[in-house]
Amino acid sequence: MLEVMERLTAALAALPGIGRRSAERMAIHLARHPDTIGRALTESLAAAQTELAVCPLCGSVTLKTQVPCRLCTDPRREDAILCIVENPADISILEQSGAYGGRYFSLMGRLSPMKGEGPAHLRLPALFERAAAAKEILLAMDSDVEGDATASFLRQELTTRFPQLKITRLAFGLPSGSAVSYSDPVTLARAIQNRTPLTRP
Amino acid sequence: MLEVMERLTAALAALPGIGRRSAERMAIHLARHPDTIGRALTESLAAAQTELAVCPLCGSVTLKTQVPCRLCTDPRREDAILCIVENPADISILEQSGAYGGRYFSLMGRLSPMKGEGPAHLRLPALFERAAAAKEILLAMDSDVEGDATASFLRQELTTRFPQLKITRLAFGLPSGSAVSYSDPVTLARAIQNRTPLTRP
Repeated sequence: MLEVMERLTAALAALPGIGRRSAERMAIHLARHPDTIGRALTESLAAAQTELAVCPLCGSVTLKTQVPCRLCTDPRREDAILCIVENPADISILEQSGAYGGRYFSLMGRLSPMKGEGPAHLRLPALFERAAAAKEILLAMDSDVEGDATASFLRQELTTRFPQLKITRLAFGLPSGSAVSYSDPVTLARAIQNRTPLTRP
Repeated sequence: MLEVMERLTAALAALPGIGRRSAERMAIHLARHPDTIGRALTESLAAAQTELAVCPLCGSVTLKTQVPCRLCTDPRREDAILCIVENPADISILEQSGAYGGRYFSLMGRLSPMKGEGPAHLRLPALFERAAAAKEILLAMDSDVEGDATASFLRQELTTRFPQLKITRLAFGLPSGSAVSYSDPVTLARAIQNRTPLTRP
């Protein structure tokens, strides 16, 4: 492979969720369309580098002129509830649900023994500082093995330090619009265990 | 979403195989690491825009100082056999096999009625010009419905125009290293139909 293409492919493969093959296809596409797709990416990257910053409180991306970010400073949001996410991308997805009005904190990772990522990879000192001011912590980890391990670890660490703190986790069950006959057994087991009463007892 | 992030996300989502969600994750990663990952991408994109060109013969990416590309000009490769691929990325994968020594031609697409992409989306006039000089055309389409349709269409168009031309297609069968018990029925059916004799008849 050409050395210029090799460098572009490597730069793309450093992005999350992008494997070597995808990066190669993207690099070819960029090299073939330098004046349209390549230029749009170059210009938007330059703007991002000039204008954006990381919010020191929640870890999400914000404008350099808006630090801490809008969600962390909005006076209409509740300070008493803090939602812990694995990554900042989760924050915008949760916001789209419109169902949450508290603050956020991103761990920037999860416990992943397979990748050698332990508690030191999470922003725990910053988390404990934020948690001290909260009444409830909502754990919004993924519903997989590593998400479960991370949530379980955080529950333990937080209850040890803050015995009065209420700790919750996103509910498990059927995703919206799904068919029971196509659901996997673990999802169904959790949906049964957490079944919602429709009539009063 | 911030307007700068919106633009960066849109620029990334314009790349092949990148959906909106992936593009959002990539944009956040770039915004959070402007001096390492963002800078590597900016610099390699700039180099690509300065140094790269598209080979007018096969459609793959080459240096501006090497047009037509290395594969199209290498005197050790056979001119008599022309391999037709859907996209330039396929050329580098086929080259890695080390089993082909002819020339290449990229269609820059495939027949895809679902996406409204018909024969006009393929580089047919250029293909017919190249095919006139070949003895054999090797069709290297994907082994899916649209790849089959494209190969079938090309076989018909090429035999009409060049009745003497030998037309072949990549063999179907078990991929290397695969287990029979995990293979899908269509792959197995094709592997049976195209079974290879191991003893002389």
